Amino acid sequence: MPEYAIGVDLGGTNLRAAAIDREGRFIDKISGSTDLAEGRDAVIDDIVRNIVTLRDRLGPAGLRGVGIGVPGFIELEKGMIVGSHNLPGFDNFPVRDEIGRRLGSAVILENDANAAALGEKWMGAGQGVDDLVLLTLGTGIGGGIISRGRILHGFVGMAGELGHLTVVPNGNPCGCGNRGCVEKHASATAIEAMAKLVALGDNLTAKDVYDLAVGGDHLAKRVFESMGTALGTALAILVNVFNFPLYLLSGGALPAWDFFAPAMFAEVEARSFTYRVTKTRIEKASLGNEAGLYGAACLPFHLS
Amino acid sequence: MPEYAIGVDLGGTNLRAAAIDREGRFIDKISGSTDLAEGRDAVIDDIVRNIVTLRDRLGPAGLRGVGIGVPGFIELEKGMIVGSHNLPGFDNFPVRDEIGRRLGSAVILENDANAAALGEKWMGAGQGVDDLVLLTLGTGIGGGIISRGRILHGFVGMAGELGHLTVVPNGNPCGCGNRGCVEKHASATAIEAMAKLVALGDNLTAKDVYDLAVGGDHLAKRVFESMGTALGTALAILVNVFNFPLYLLSGGALPAWDFFAPAMFAEVEARSFTYRVTKTRIEKASLGNEAGLYGAACLPFHLS
Repeated sequence: MPEYAIGVDLGGTNLRAAAIDREGRFIDKISGSTDLAEGRDAVIDDIVRNIVTLRDRLGPAGLRGVGIGVPGFIELEKGMIVGSHNLPGFDNFPVRDEIGRRLGSAVILENDANAAALGEKWMGAGQGVDDLVLLTLGTGIGGGIISRGRILHGFVGMAGELGHLTVVPNGNPCGCGNRGCVEKHASATAIEAMAKLVALGDNLTAKDVYDLAVGGDHLAKRVFESMGTALGTALAILVNVFNFPLYLLSGGALPAWDFFAPAMFAEVEARSFTYRVTKTRIEKASLGNEAGLYGAACLPFHLS
Repeated sequence: MPEYAIGVDLGGTNLRAAAIDREGRFIDKISGSTDLAEGRDAVIDDIVRNIVTLRDRLGPAGLRGVGIGVPGFIELEKGMIVGSHNLPGFDNFPVRDEIGRRLGSAVILENDANAAALGEKWMGAGQGVDDLVLLTLGTGIGGGIISRGRILHGFVGMAGELGHLTVVPNGNPCGCGNRGCVEKHASATAIEAMAKLVALGDNLTAKDVYDLAVGGDHLAKRVFESMGTALGTALAILVNVFNFPLYLLSGGALPAWDFFAPAMFAEVEARSFTYRVTKTRIEKASLGNEAGLYGAACLPFHLS
């Protein structure tokens, strides 16, 4: 009987669950889509069904627990999401306790980027490092902080909301109420907005802008430079705050690394004395979109 | 025979040392000035003489250790200051080991704002709180982070360099190489520079600008509002990063609280979702310039 935990990664688009053992080996996995159009209760049905399917396949005796990574601001004690634009209907709903009730066992709720940071520390680019920051570059930008081997939560559970660091005081407005959040200047959504502003074309996706940059388009390259500068400003802040040895970037933007990274590194160099005099590493994460599954499954093992 | 530790606060202007017992009671204290004109070695002579004086008065048997708070970027492992504009001659000099050698006992070196943060946690406004950030508002701006009851150091010892958070990307140049550091927009030096820019008068001190504000001068009040806005931007970043329950402000600027705090709170409100939905406290520290002495003396007791 293998001992395992189940990790769930609930995104605005994808819903995935994996059974992982204490050594970090994938045993089984279920991938599907998040059917938000059907409403919150249908999504919760899907989550519970996926967990039960894995549990039935592997046997309930070996299950050590369930961890679930979700986007948005988390209230840890209540097990609630209190701010998630990607999951309408979940705000202020006791999602942890409802899933736990249906499963008949305790569930650990965690912010998805926090889970991804823990996953990278456990089995990815952060192995052997006790202090790191992860930025997830996707539709939005998420953040996770691992300090002394553990997720830094803050007193409510909202620490690590790094997509909302101000990098342009009078910059683009953000759903969080702020202006100039790094998420509004360096995410895929920001890439698309900038492409529109420089008239690269109508309704281009971030991937379209990337393809134009690969083809040599100078404006497309400038868009990624702007993204890199915004990221670099945020990273310089984080290096000055934490002086951690490792900062990881993950998410769909990584293929564009060569287009945004030079401007990013130049900005960190210019803005952080600490970066210039220490051997701080800023690198690509290694687990791709499975980092969140690893991290969510790691939680019930309480390895740190 | 009382058990005590000696804490030293080495500033660019003042050199102070205190003997404090395990319960945080001041037993004895020596205050003097830092005679930088005489050179580094003379300053080190003064530090050692003060420590020895206290040790002789109280008896060496009760001495549990010596902690020294110094301005600048610290390399903890080497016990060196690697970036301090306020202490010329100390850069890359093994100050910890030199003082330890002369005393014949181990010494703990710490950044002065880190020490102040620990002092506030131990005996000041942070008592009972395990996670807090302190900003010291003086000639420059320093920062100290207490996480899970202990100073957050980072891997070299430079964590908490919060005066160098970027709050105005194209703002005033800073000695650290960055532009728009909060220190260049919200310190006493920044107040004086702004007073000059709005032609309030030649060579006004921050205290002069404060007196003008008290007298009702609108431009002087605007200067403090600008300071508050810059501080608020930095605090919003810190609230979003840490989600800690408590952020403390200390230093010579506190008397001007009523002039800068309204703009500061407005900016944090506007820029931090986390601040708006949680009961985050941003308050005055309570130990004044003795916080650093408490913190430096706290270090050898290893209370956390």
